[in-house]
Amino acid sequence: MGEFDLIARYFTRPARRNALGVGDDCALLQPGPGMQLAVSTDLLVEGRHFLSTVDPRRLGHKSLAVNLSDLAACGAEPLAFTLALALPAVDEAWLAGFAAGMFALADAHGCELVGGDTTRGPLAINITVFGEVPSGDALLRSGAQPGDDLWVSGTLGDARLALEALRGTVSLPEAVFAAARRRLEEPQPRVALGRALRGVASAAIDISDGLLGDLGHVLQRSAVGASVDAEAAAALLAARTQMALPPEQVNALVLAGGDDYELAFTAPSRLRGAVEAAARASATPVTRIGRIEAEPGLRVLDARGQPLAQRFPGFDHFA
Amino acid sequence: MGEFDLIARYFTRPARRNALGVGDDCALLQPGPGMQLAVSTDLLVEGRHFLSTVDPRRLGHKSLAVNLSDLAACGAEPLAFTLALALPAVDEAWLAGFAAGMFALADAHGCELVGGDTTRGPLAINITVFGEVPSGDALLRSGAQPGDDLWVSGTLGDARLALEALRGTVSLPEAVFAAARRRLEEPQPRVALGRALRGVASAAIDISDGLLGDLGHVLQRSAVGASVDAEAAAALLAARTQMALPPEQVNALVLAGGDDYELAFTAPSRLRGAVEAAARASATPVTRIGRIEAEPGLRVLDARGQPLAQRFPGFDHFA
Repeated sequence: MGEFDLIARYFTRPARRNALGVGDDCALLQPGPGMQLAVSTDLLVEGRHFLSTVDPRRLGHKSLAVNLSDLAACGAEPLAFTLALALPAVDEAWLAGFAAGMFALADAHGCELVGGDTTRGPLAINITVFGEVPSGDALLRSGAQPGDDLWVSGTLGDARLALEALRGTVSLPEAVFAAARRRLEEPQPRVALGRALRGVASAAIDISDGLLGDLGHVLQRSAVGASVDAEAAAALLAARTQMALPPEQVNALVLAGGDDYELAFTAPSRLRGAVEAAARASATPVTRIGRIEAEPGLRVLDARGQPLAQRFPGFDHFA
Repeated sequence: MGEFDLIARYFTRPARRNALGVGDDCALLQPGPGMQLAVSTDLLVEGRHFLSTVDPRRLGHKSLAVNLSDLAACGAEPLAFTLALALPAVDEAWLAGFAAGMFALADAHGCELVGGDTTRGPLAINITVFGEVPSGDALLRSGAQPGDDLWVSGTLGDARLALEALRGTVSLPEAVFAAARRRLEEPQPRVALGRALRGVASAAIDISDGLLGDLGHVLQRSAVGASVDAEAAAALLAARTQMALPPEQVNALVLAGGDDYELAFTAPSRLRGAVEAAARASATPVTRIGRIEAEPGLRVLDARGQPLAQRFPGFDHFA
């Protein structure tokens, strides 16, 4: 199968919102009046971001999900995306699965594939996603203020737990592994929550690289510090309800595990009711796990308010 | 050097047109009133699109140039781009050269880096570019009409000639090789010509995959056929002025060589003067090499108007 046949068979669908579908030199997009276009791009490489054994349907889902998660962190509404795909060979079963997973999530968010590029090469997937957000309303990393609450959506650490099980460093009961693996391979981007937090959250970020590392970006951009309640964070490991794990391991998973496509966000404490309303409106659980402080730095505190002795290396693709 | 240091050192510059520079979850873009956003994405993989020995500065240039060429083919004005980079290792000399070449071309076109992603992996470069074009004015592949002239910009075939020399299948005098290699490694996207052709050209395409193959997309989209004057095309091989090459080889280079980031476009013959004015205004040579016909199919004709016996396989990344 040639490149153009491949695009025609797996990646061409009728154009909708976009003026031009896949196939011209450019796609044409037009944000609505008063709207800004939010753009993000994520590159996924085999062995680094996913294992060669991953179900292609889940990989298709995740490739788009990690990008939608960036839109969520800005409070943007998904609009469209481009897909660049390097494939070692044309494997039709793989392509059909990948496309099915990707388009199922795209359809769930009304997000249209508008262009792309395919080539032969070591498996790599690059999606660039476009969303729209009312001008000036995007959630940024730079707005956190001393006194703000620190919140996080959903659960934490289960994706990394599944990764460790796949690597063989931990052994999990079957049901725990299946649930954790779903968190790793089919993350649900928090688009509805991000949108609902416009005008409520003072800053937001997607914590794909681990809570502490990504929170660090917010603190740096906002020129503030924070304290994090380790016990409140540890309670967010879903697997804990089904099995016992050493406390240090739980801390490492929830605070620095990575691959949690959840939102960490800050909001003035007088807006707690509004945060809870946004969570209800988007059917997304949120938990308060700390607060923003004027003193620079990130303090992880135990149940007695004492600094945790444990250290958490940040997650870095080149470390 | 970690991922964030790498981004800070090589890819972070002050934000200009874009509301947010590199570093938030999303970049924010706003096309002007009445403008559409034109989007294109190209993925370059080592061994497929460039050799490992290429000068990183030229590779940085080319990685952006191939994307700007897609904007040119739509008549769009460059605005911004995102860069996703998979690197086998952090090589500072390589990164400095790559960034210098990329930013030099970006600055020449007022095109701003607004976001990206870096990871470790087999060398792959994916740029997604954004341009703006007045709503409804984009040059498309679908507008060619029977009777239109077929034009091409610049010269043809020299990039492929350089590639063949690098592969060792042809031997070139040093000066010819240097000039041809520049065409291969530092193509100049025809942005000014594309813009000048708005309202003049009836269809346009960027002929990166070879003239005949890419022209085929225009014919298919426009539901027309075309005849191409092989002699007029052959005259566009710049190397011909400096050395003799077998006619069949010249034909293969100019008609199906690939990697020519020139525009092929069509225009009504009554607009020849306007095409020539657009060429002058953009300081870009253009040559009439054929015409659009109602009869489907692509006919390559010799100097006597007879079909050429020579066959030209299309260029396809999976063929």
